[in-house]
Amino acid sequence: MTAPTLFQSPLAVITAGLSGFTGSLQRQDVPVVALDWRPPADGNEALTAILTAVYADPALLEKIEAANREVLSRISDSTPQIVDVLPAHEALGLEGQIITHAGPPIAWQRMCGPQKRAVMGAIQFEGWAASNAEAAALVQSGAVRLAPNHAHYAVGPMTGIISPSMPVLVAHNATFGNYGYSTFNEGRGNTLWFGLFDDGALQRLQWIRDTLAPAVKAALGQHGSLNVFDIVAQGLQMGDECHARSAACTALLIKRLTAPMLEAGVSPAAVAEFVRFADGNNHFFLTWTMAAVKCVMDAAHGVPYSTVVTAMSRNGVDFMLRVSGLGNEWLVAPVAPMDEAVYYTGFSVAEAAGDIGDSAIIETCGLGGMAMAGAPTIAAFVGGTLADEVAAVDSLADITVGRHPKFSLPPMDGQNTPLGVEVLRAVETRTVPFITTGVLHEASPTVGQIGTGVARVPISLFDAALIALAHTWGIATAQPHPTNTVRLEPS
Amino acid sequence: MTAPTLFQSPLAVITAGLSGFTGSLQRQDVPVVALDWRPPADGNEALTAILTAVYADPALLEKIEAANREVLSRISDSTPQIVDVLPAHEALGLEGQIITHAGPPIAWQRMCGPQKRAVMGAIQFEGWAASNAEAAALVQSGAVRLAPNHAHYAVGPMTGIISPSMPVLVAHNATFGNYGYSTFNEGRGNTLWFGLFDDGALQRLQWIRDTLAPAVKAALGQHGSLNVFDIVAQGLQMGDECHARSAACTALLIKRLTAPMLEAGVSPAAVAEFVRFADGNNHFFLTWTMAAVKCVMDAAHGVPYSTVVTAMSRNGVDFMLRVSGLGNEWLVAPVAPMDEAVYYTGFSVAEAAGDIGDSAIIETCGLGGMAMAGAPTIAAFVGGTLADEVAAVDSLADITVGRHPKFSLPPMDGQNTPLGVEVLRAVETRTVPFITTGVLHEASPTVGQIGTGVARVPISLFDAALIALAHTWGIATAQPHPTNTVRLEPS
Repeated sequence: MTAPTLFQSPLAVITAGLSGFTGSLQRQDVPVVALDWRPPADGNEALTAILTAVYADPALLEKIEAANREVLSRISDSTPQIVDVLPAHEALGLEGQIITHAGPPIAWQRMCGPQKRAVMGAIQFEGWAASNAEAAALVQSGAVRLAPNHAHYAVGPMTGIISPSMPVLVAHNATFGNYGYSTFNEGRGNTLWFGLFDDGALQRLQWIRDTLAPAVKAALGQHGSLNVFDIVAQGLQMGDECHARSAACTALLIKRLTAPMLEAGVSPAAVAEFVRFADGNNHFFLTWTMAAVKCVMDAAHGVPYSTVVTAMSRNGVDFMLRVSGLGNEWLVAPVAPMDEAVYYTGFSVAEAAGDIGDSAIIETCGLGGMAMAGAPTIAAFVGGTLADEVAAVDSLADITVGRHPKFSLPPMDGQNTPLGVEVLRAVETRTVPFITTGVLHEASPTVGQIGTGVARVPISLFDAALIALAHTWGIATAQPHPTNTVRLEPS
Repeated sequence: MTAPTLFQSPLAVITAGLSGFTGSLQRQDVPVVALDWRPPADGNEALTAILTAVYADPALLEKIEAANREVLSRISDSTPQIVDVLPAHEALGLEGQIITHAGPPIAWQRMCGPQKRAVMGAIQFEGWAASNAEAAALVQSGAVRLAPNHAHYAVGPMTGIISPSMPVLVAHNATFGNYGYSTFNEGRGNTLWFGLFDDGALQRLQWIRDTLAPAVKAALGQHGSLNVFDIVAQGLQMGDECHARSAACTALLIKRLTAPMLEAGVSPAAVAEFVRFADGNNHFFLTWTMAAVKCVMDAAHGVPYSTVVTAMSRNGVDFMLRVSGLGNEWLVAPVAPMDEAVYYTGFSVAEAAGDIGDSAIIETCGLGGMAMAGAPTIAAFVGGTLADEVAAVDSLADITVGRHPKFSLPPMDGQNTPLGVEVLRAVETRTVPFITTGVLHEASPTVGQIGTGVARVPISLFDAALIALAHTWGIATAQPHPTNTVRLEPS
């Protein structure tokens, strides 16, 4: 009996996703090419069935692709401009005693430490209570209500707390007419966005409200609408990816606003304070980007059949994700652990609060993680080299449907950034977007930031989004409609 | 008769510098590795003899290496700070009617078009003449003298014209105590540095003297000494290489000086004018870098036995190069043609003035061409991709003796920039430094800049430097001491 023909000639093998088999062959000196393959949707039958049904339906596919093209057009055509500064109660339509926050709706009891501390600080800033204990009691009794920023067309960084008298930047999407809002970034030290509150934080909030906000409002009045993406596009040429790093954009903003601020008659002392404050805070431009992106992605939302993500947001406990074709139904899941961050000396994931902030909307618009190779100085987040960053950005192109025409990356020879995270591709490939972000101390009222790095979007959100889309499209599936969802309405 | 043993077994060949032979073998399918080799000093016997004599003398080599280490230490230890703004006559010690200029000494008749026009403009700015013709007559008669900036511890960009009443930035090397000077950059439009002069240029020069200079002087008084390399090091993280591109450094400077300027009591209108002017001129920081580098490289000059270049400077006709161990003897040669530049539409090397400006001193200090991979946006200068820039910077490491400890390149994973161009290596390898620069129109009184790109240092300057060094070291050579040299003394 002879061996089968296959084994009579020299073997050369291509393996697909079978690393054990590959290793065995390599140890026997058999030439082997290992494809980095995994079964679609990790072999999950229900998800694979939905994907198969979609790919087998040319009419449906055409609707999805047309819808996603519409979403890309709306993003690309948007012209977000900062047009004014207003008190939050006026801009966001906040009535009575209400505090808005980053991420999905959450009960006081479940809130993470930094966000709770920031809520108590904001209540004292508003003068509704004189201590943390009094402030907490007001929330527990329902006298002070909590609501997500996203329910009020607003976004906030990290804890993302906004209270009625805080000034907000007003972003206007000049192409589509809608508005988005964000706070002024407080900078370093004891600050609400890092979950720290003391007398210094209170004084800074008062200065922001009484000095900075009127100065910027006056400068904008003199300057006229400020096109945010003009500055963002330049910042990308200068080492910013505009989420973890906004140093260049901040310098460009100061350069742009100082002369109009002086010409508007703002006192030299106030102008000097503005410049010093922004000079000392490389994240000063972050919330300008966030407000702008919010009004862009809201304009791209609500296109039936679109599978593109239009918002991502976290509160340290839960992550919520919005898909253009799913209307006002946001998918919710626990945040992923912050185990990929670079921690400051003495800290680890054990002390970390969960992934937090509305700032993740930045990654839905071709910035932040999508633009990471534009900022080689933060390469440590993903392995330490520009090549690691390039590989990370390239991997995102697997789950996005286009490129942002205004945002290019000089270290990638001017390649434009991946744009439009797409649910079908994420479910099939199991690749998820990552967010360049900071990490906060969970328990300490004095420490604040303890690291920086990348956070991953929970894959379960994409799986849930696919199932929700399947129900919307009338695809038969044994999977029930996801129940962990929220609808956001102004409160 | 059998073939020689060599040809009885399969051939595998390594070729060295023989491209024709390599091609023949490749056409015959003979495996061949082509080494990119050329004979030392291109086979020039006199130069090779000097190199051989040096390499055969361990005692001499040790002196050279120790001297070069000293030069590197002086550069690395230098702390250049802008400390004041003064009229040029006071800072440079200019007496009577004198105009200083970029590059080596040159007679009026041989001056290139842009530099001639700038000289005539500066004379009219000083009020010594009322027309170009009158101004030219003053120079031709000797009533107005010409002198190189470098003879007065000064450097100027492009035409580099300085006249006595122009304000100059005063750079102080806080480590070694010496001073360097440069003008304020005039920016875009009709400007002396581009060889253009009209009423607008005149008014701008007056504004620089009467408004900008006092404002910056006051700001420096309030701020204290401004450490230039702090800003340069940040700029390198933000897409500048600090010669062709100073956009980030300029923004960082505005951010740094505006508050002190206001606090010093400069009028809001003047501060607004300063910010608008600098905002409109991404080269505003260029001359701050130049003055700083001048006082660094002067401190590194004059170390016996050192073979490191401490200055390079061009006037559009001639190029001069200074070596630390050659004292006050500068080698001079005609500039290389500007045939590697990227020309604006409608222009070519045919209309170009020659390589011009004292700014090439930047490349002697690990910036500009040495830092090119820090500025992927100017990759078009050397081929279009970041990989081309990285290769260009890597090639410079062949002719330099160290790395600048303060200057790192994020797109090269934080690698420090090559520092200290060395004569022996340049002569042996025929690799010359390149300079990131602009190109001016030779004949037109209205066009100005017509391109940007890289200019190469003439290799003949390194050959002449080696011969001069050989004479200094007492190495026997048939080559006479170079005659095309200048000694610069204040006039």
